[in-house]
Amino acid sequence: MSGKFLVTGGAGYVGSVVARHLIEAGEEVVVLDNLSTGFREGVPSGASFIEGDIRDAAKWLDSSFDAVLHFAAFSQVGESVVKPEKYWDNNVGGTMALLGAMREAGVRKLVFSSTAATYGEPKEVPIVESAPTRPTNPYGASKLAVDHMITGEAAAHGLGAVSLRYFNVAGAYGDCGERHDPESHLIPLVLQVAQGRRDAISVFGDDYPTPDGTCVRDYIHVADLAEAHLLALEAARPGEHLICNLGNGNGFSVREVIETVRKVTGHPIPEVVAPRRGGDPAALVASADTARERLGWNPSRADLAGIVADAWEFAQRRGN
Amino acid sequence: MSGKFLVTGGAGYVGSVVARHLIEAGEEVVVLDNLSTGFREGVPSGASFIEGDIRDAAKWLDSSFDAVLHFAAFSQVGESVVKPEKYWDNNVGGTMALLGAMREAGVRKLVFSSTAATYGEPKEVPIVESAPTRPTNPYGASKLAVDHMITGEAAAHGLGAVSLRYFNVAGAYGDCGERHDPESHLIPLVLQVAQGRRDAISVFGDDYPTPDGTCVRDYIHVADLAEAHLLALEAARPGEHLICNLGNGNGFSVREVIETVRKVTGHPIPEVVAPRRGGDPAALVASADTARERLGWNPSRADLAGIVADAWEFAQRRGN
Repeated sequence: MSGKFLVTGGAGYVGSVVARHLIEAGEEVVVLDNLSTGFREGVPSGASFIEGDIRDAAKWLDSSFDAVLHFAAFSQVGESVVKPEKYWDNNVGGTMALLGAMREAGVRKLVFSSTAATYGEPKEVPIVESAPTRPTNPYGASKLAVDHMITGEAAAHGLGAVSLRYFNVAGAYGDCGERHDPESHLIPLVLQVAQGRRDAISVFGDDYPTPDGTCVRDYIHVADLAEAHLLALEAARPGEHLICNLGNGNGFSVREVIETVRKVTGHPIPEVVAPRRGGDPAALVASADTARERLGWNPSRADLAGIVADAWEFAQRRGN
Repeated sequence: MSGKFLVTGGAGYVGSVVARHLIEAGEEVVVLDNLSTGFREGVPSGASFIEGDIRDAAKWLDSSFDAVLHFAAFSQVGESVVKPEKYWDNNVGGTMALLGAMREAGVRKLVFSSTAATYGEPKEVPIVESAPTRPTNPYGASKLAVDHMITGEAAAHGLGAVSLRYFNVAGAYGDCGERHDPESHLIPLVLQVAQGRRDAISVFGDDYPTPDGTCVRDYIHVADLAEAHLLALEAARPGEHLICNLGNGNGFSVREVIETVRKVTGHPIPEVVAPRRGGDPAALVASADTARERLGWNPSRADLAGIVADAWEFAQRRGN
């Protein structure tokens, strides 16, 4: 490849890591981000930056672009339950506008940042892409709606598209790491305890039907994830919408994550058991066979200690 | 009940029959329809009429309304495959605006016209509401997105909502009958043959795994359907989103429908076997147990000959 790519949401966690991988591969990258949840300093050096909204993508998209990588979205599950209209308006309405702008500009390749939350509570693990999609919150529902929208766009208008359904993304890549406000993901929260910014970590439920009673999730290193996006750009075929889960296929429990953080940081990490949260499935583990077969993806950073070590280095460097 | 109701899409087939039932029950009805596919003369007498778009619903909705019955949507499956963006924009974007207007006006009850097309190709019949939703076209996907949107709105903002997933609506009620342009539904098409407006009826596939090899569908009389909407208005509970299939639970094959039209009209109805159409499942039959149990619904017009006779009377009266 050597091309020009629009990365929406490229000032956010995953978008910035993917943008950086593209730049390192010699590609030209334009980041479009309205900075509503992203950070200006998150945009990797070497990328052009447009502070703007995907609804106005038609202002900047033209036929010089080879593809769009679409990360821009609100992604806080809890907020989506309280303000669902914000998620439908931005994630779904915004993508309608983006797809329209792509059609107008003749940009016919898309990689979309989808999510395991489209599946909801699975009946079987590991989760395959043909599993029923029963999202349990508006965030997941809005991403599922976009996946359906892309399927129609590919069939009707020849878009070549790949949706990547992420499981639990973690770790960091150089200057690019996880930084949400409020933070809601387990590994950065446990690291905040190690940094003394939080007294203890809450374990929401220790009576799940899992080996140690705590929830099991599939953690994937953000750099492995980024590599899948570059492979997806090569795999996209006009008129086809490919959907791939991205995970390691290995589940780690909340307690295993906490124990790993203890080992990596040397901090005791006090934990407090709290009641289960509604809508937290016992186990979410991906089958990534489709990504391996169709994209040729081969994640190489599946070791949890390594993932935590990279996240810890980023957290310490950021220092707050 | 004695209340004031906004009926979006009340100039269309199902919307006009429901509006008429509301009027006959002594309710005040305001029809909102942009006439993009509805007909001005379809609005039942006794209803107020606003020619306008649901996107502008805030102009007319106020706290004097007790509920909204939301039928306005594009509904041609074939068109949705060719122009998916039209369906996302109108059906999904339009409903976002409508829900926003309802929130602003404090109107907290909704009955939504959903569809069996949200399920796609079923693995088991009869279809229950907990079946996987895998829509096979953008029409069904857009209606599913709205169902998910309503679920979130109910949980977050106390909306009381019922989605009614229609199977094959047929028949007529007084002056209100089926009239699509182009016509795509089986019974009106066969009746066009009886009227001499069409030479023969196409049977798309006679090698399905069904008793006579033709597709099986669940036909429900539009008056039975309308009664379910009035019951849904009574059953809606704040903060709850109830989803009910509406069908008879009896499937009739394409050949059975044609044979019934022959008997009712006395016309020979030539038929031509054509290849299967993509995306036509062999059998679509509803389980309507939820509607019976939760709404107290008891359809009384399940006889196919009666459904066809009512549609035939309407077609002859319309004369073209």
